[in-house]
Amino acid sequence: MASSGEEVSNKQVILKGYVTGFPKESDMYVRTSPIKLKLPEDESSNNAVLVKNLYLSCDPYMRGRMANRPPIVGHGVSEIVDSRHPGFKKGDLVWGRKMGWEEYSLIKEPEKLFRIHNTDVPLSYYTGILGMPGMTAYFGFYQVCSPKKGERVYISAASGAVGQLVGQFAKLMGCYVVGSAGSKEKVELLKSKFGFDDAFNYKEEHDLVAALKRYFPEGIDIYFENVGGKMLDAVLLNMRFHGRIAACGMISQYNLQQPEGVQNLTTVVFKRIRLEGFIVFDYFDQYPKFLDFVLPYIREGKIVYVEDITEGLEHGPSALVGLFSGRNVGKQVVKVTNE
Amino acid sequence: MASSGEEVSNKQVILKGYVTGFPKESDMYVRTSPIKLKLPEDESSNNAVLVKNLYLSCDPYMRGRMANRPPIVGHGVSEIVDSRHPGFKKGDLVWGRKMGWEEYSLIKEPEKLFRIHNTDVPLSYYTGILGMPGMTAYFGFYQVCSPKKGERVYISAASGAVGQLVGQFAKLMGCYVVGSAGSKEKVELLKSKFGFDDAFNYKEEHDLVAALKRYFPEGIDIYFENVGGKMLDAVLLNMRFHGRIAACGMISQYNLQQPEGVQNLTTVVFKRIRLEGFIVFDYFDQYPKFLDFVLPYIREGKIVYVEDITEGLEHGPSALVGLFSGRNVGKQVVKVTNE
Repeated sequence: MASSGEEVSNKQVILKGYVTGFPKESDMYVRTSPIKLKLPEDESSNNAVLVKNLYLSCDPYMRGRMANRPPIVGHGVSEIVDSRHPGFKKGDLVWGRKMGWEEYSLIKEPEKLFRIHNTDVPLSYYTGILGMPGMTAYFGFYQVCSPKKGERVYISAASGAVGQLVGQFAKLMGCYVVGSAGSKEKVELLKSKFGFDDAFNYKEEHDLVAALKRYFPEGIDIYFENVGGKMLDAVLLNMRFHGRIAACGMISQYNLQQPEGVQNLTTVVFKRIRLEGFIVFDYFDQYPKFLDFVLPYIREGKIVYVEDITEGLEHGPSALVGLFSGRNVGKQVVKVTNE
Repeated sequence: MASSGEEVSNKQVILKGYVTGFPKESDMYVRTSPIKLKLPEDESSNNAVLVKNLYLSCDPYMRGRMANRPPIVGHGVSEIVDSRHPGFKKGDLVWGRKMGWEEYSLIKEPEKLFRIHNTDVPLSYYTGILGMPGMTAYFGFYQVCSPKKGERVYISAASGAVGQLVGQFAKLMGCYVVGSAGSKEKVELLKSKFGFDDAFNYKEEHDLVAALKRYFPEGIDIYFENVGGKMLDAVLLNMRFHGRIAACGMISQYNLQQPEGVQNLTTVVFKRIRLEGFIVFDYFDQYPKFLDFVLPYIREGKIVYVEDITEGLEHGPSALVGLFSGRNVGKQVVKVTNE
């Protein structure tokens, strides 16, 4: 056994260049490079780890990085293959935001990777309910929305990685919850699987203002914003006094060269609305608290989680592109190997 | 002395109809009606008061009422001429939001009028620094903006009734304060009279984003929003992470049939911005606390207040219209009689 380690082939998804507009599969290609399964012993790899990627996560925020950083790097779940960092050893399972879209990644600063200790749940969950989207839903809802029992909660992109959880958290708190999504199948999922009080397909509504009025005749207390643009405008006209909008993302705007204008912001004043953006990374130090909260609910089946798992890294580009047209049903994950 | 009281003439400003677009002087006319200076003794006047209006206030929110309520009613300072309400007696001075634009007003539900006890300051101040705009500045800044010493504060419409106070409150707290206004004279006032660190004329800036960048090279922590539209868009691009925007008003939008779209709202997410609308009426029960805070500063000359007083009710329409083109310098007040 050579100390330089076995050399294997490393399949990689490469971005051809910076992406403008909607990302297309043809913006990426798959290639194979050789990689040694042992870290170099020189100084360049001090504190680095080498990981085998098991699951890669497709997340809306990745669109921003495609506009200015060609290598595709995102969240993932991986196994440590070699480590020169005292905090990690071979065989450890980790999740975090450092994984390249490839079979093996060399991670130079692994400090922010989270060790995975609970393996009685699907490992892919660490890209979703037990990872970044789960914390987004948890801290966004409980801390940014200031929810109270009985309040009326609206969630856009409600069947996605974050939305499905916000809805379930809101139901646990005794709120009235309506979600919107972009297909009949997703709407059905919201009602039958996630326990939303109601749901609708926004693509079938010509008048979003009227649609929201129908589901919230008395108005919306809390809007969990994943969409932006026209949806936000329609929501603003349906908000109740002292309503809160947690701005988690505005995916409808990410592929536009020129964002849509939001017309109805003046309602923020007279309705005393609080619109607050947040980024889950600010809450990462509270991860243990979050796990203590959510793991029991998963184990008892009181919170469910739907994933859309694409098998094989070579299908990664299609999965990632599909996220922006809403093709996924539930959290979009790429299982790196389909062996 | 007849119990029915002396009959006098009551000059009134009347709105011809609902106003669309920018209000014009020709949307209003002045007429004179007779009025008895004693309340009728029948049930219709139970708990009413009759007041002689001393000062009428020109406030941006009045634009909204001109769109759907022909009688012009606003804030004012008045003297009780007759009272059938146990809380008020002849000679009392009051301020509040019930004053018609006329010399004498019959107020049927005077409960929400504030009694004026401190008369060592100009009475007109109760339309401004000691009234609704003063409380707007106070609660908007201290409670909505969550200011901290050393933070960078930007105020639009900064020489107006509210802005000039927000700037002075922010300076008292040790913030860096820059304001914008629409004339050289106002900009000078901000710097020389109100102690702003800097100020600029937004009408002379072709690129508001660049102008704000110049005054806030490290970005804006707090924006006190009086304007909306393009200004808000430019501010959003200059906000710092975790910045706060107190949305007090959006006067640039009030006369538009179709509001301008705000393009840059997605920055709210990644910069974790809190945009919060508020209405001062929600804080009116804290008026005594506010007075205790602000009166000593006025008496000691540590806070100054600039008013633009138009003399004579017949010039009221011109004063009110001027508010929306920024003709006033400081708080716009109409002194009802110029005798």
